[in-house]
Amino acid sequence: MTNAFQTSIEVRFGDCDPAGIVYYPTLYHYCHVAFEEAWGGALGVRYADLCQRDRIGFPTVHVETDFRHPARYGDALDFTVWVSRVGATSVVFEFAASAGRIEVLRSSHTKVCTDLDTLTKRAIPDAIRARLEALDGTR
Amino acid sequence: MTNAFQTSIEVRFGDCDPAGIVYYPTLYHYCHVAFEEAWGGALGVRYADLCQRDRIGFPTVHVETDFRHPARYGDALDFTVWVSRVGATSVVFEFAASAGRIEVLRSSHTKVCTDLDTLTKRAIPDAIRARLEALDGTR
Amino acid sequence: MTNAFQTSIEVRFGDCDPAGIVYYPTLYHYCHVAFEEAWGGALGVRYADLCQRDRIGFPTVHVETDFRHPARYGDALDFTVWVSRVGATSVVFEFAASAGRIEVLRSSHTKVCTDLDTLTKRAIPDAIRARLEALDGTR
Amino acid sequence: MTNAFQTSIEVRFGDCDPAGIVYYPTLYHYCHVAFEEAWGGALGVRYADLCQRDRIGFPTVHVETDFRHPARYGDALDFTVWVSRVGATSVVFEFAASAGRIEVLRSSHTKVCTDLDTLTKRAIPDAIRARLEALDGTR
Repeated sequence: MTNAFQTSIEVRFGDCDPAGIVYYPTLYHYCHVAFEEAWGGALGVRYADLCQRDRIGFPTVHVETDFRHPARYGDALDFTVWVSRVGATSVVFEFAASAGRIEVLRSSHTKVCTDLDTLTKRAIPDAIRARLEALDGTR
Repeated sequence: MTNAFQTSIEVRFGDCDPAGIVYYPTLYHYCHVAFEEAWGGALGVRYADLCQRDRIGFPTVHVETDFRHPARYGDALDFTVWVSRVGATSVVFEFAASAGRIEVLRSSHTKVCTDLDTLTKRAIPDAIRARLEALDGTR
Repeated sequence: MTNAFQTSIEVRFGDCDPAGIVYYPTLYHYCHVAFEEAWGGALGVRYADLCQRDRIGFPTVHVETDFRHPARYGDALDFTVWVSRVGATSVVFEFAASAGRIEVLRSSHTKVCTDLDTLTKRAIPDAIRARLEALDGTR
Repeated sequence: MTNAFQTSIEVRFGDCDPAGIVYYPTLYHYCHVAFEEAWGGALGVRYADLCQRDRIGFPTVHVETDFRHPARYGDALDFTVWVSRVGATSVVFEFAASAGRIEVLRSSHTKVCTDLDTLTKRAIPDAIRARLEALDGTR
């Protein structure tokens, strides 16, 4: 996927549970870190600026995940991020993570473009829509 | 649902993000806390004893979630936990959370009975299976 | 200490690290949870209301901690919270935690009364000061 | 300080609290991440290998911290890590973090060399001691 976004996230000591593997709520934190990286790296605006300067955010309303293999302390996870659908006010981000050749997870997050002052949904701005549509992972 | 398990989880300051709402990876941590409470409260063994003494755990392999309304700092979330399917080695836990009359989330987690020493799946012990089947939420 | 505040915090699976003990940054989260509980339980206002309605918070500027014994998954930690000094704009909260008879930590946190809209320090309101002074742990 | 270790940590959305600043327990997580980086980067062994392969860890027994300025979402924190004292079984790590020219924190963590199988203290291995002594931050 040449127009997907790629980033690497290192598993930290405190991210792992007594079973020695990453606690799965923390894997969702990793997805959000990858999502934030995708904004600065592929969507033309840092997520921090989008939230704080533009007062626009993308809270998550639906999630589907397959956790395929545990991630362990010391792993570096390769995340791929792309967009599978862009609607008027919502967008579906896809996440895939692997540790070397081992697939760790595949997760789909539906997010709604939200005015952070009123916490109500709003239309995705055109400039952002164009960027989201380009991150479609198909080429 | 008379044979579902109920518990309450208070939203803490550090659980909330700059948008003033609970960061969604933390909502999965809440689901896991409710899951742990269900073991001690309805499944006959504390999850800490199951993991540490019996070396059995239930890592999560599949998740589907609808986040219906944000939870805010100061909310007390009422969690309901029940079991919708019990297989030979896996079990599906269902979670519903509300803040007063407002539904916050509905989430379904498929978990696999796992030998924590080898991190391989194993049959659910009969005594635990009976308890899981009784937590079916249908009565 | 009859005028200290007491609360109990249960160690959760995800709070523990691969060494099987609570990750120490999480012990600071526990201190903050105990601090929040002390507001609603002993200081006359919920911390959520203080922050959100009154726009007053108490960020931490200095910490000294002795971690005396690890806390483990399944422990219930008994926290004692009291105030050792109240200044014009700052206050020192003391935390002690134990698991049964085993002392887990002793921590001292200097906090500054802060206007959350401007993030600048402000005088502690008189009604709050009186309550803080009464939580002195000496009787 | 030419023989201190330097690393950069980016503040993430979920690391910040409703006041818009990094929740201070998370600043301790950042210190631990910087500590882990220092092992691989300056102490000759990855902390993951030290813990998992060699079964040696360095739990924290004493902390002193000045939080000098809040860190905000979008900041990149420059961490400097060095060692101020090496004893028979313990070592003091020093952490300083800044966001651009603004000092964010200064923290001192006493850590005890620990056998992770027995959770008892042990002598610091000579090879590690030499490396710790070299990370003294004074040149």
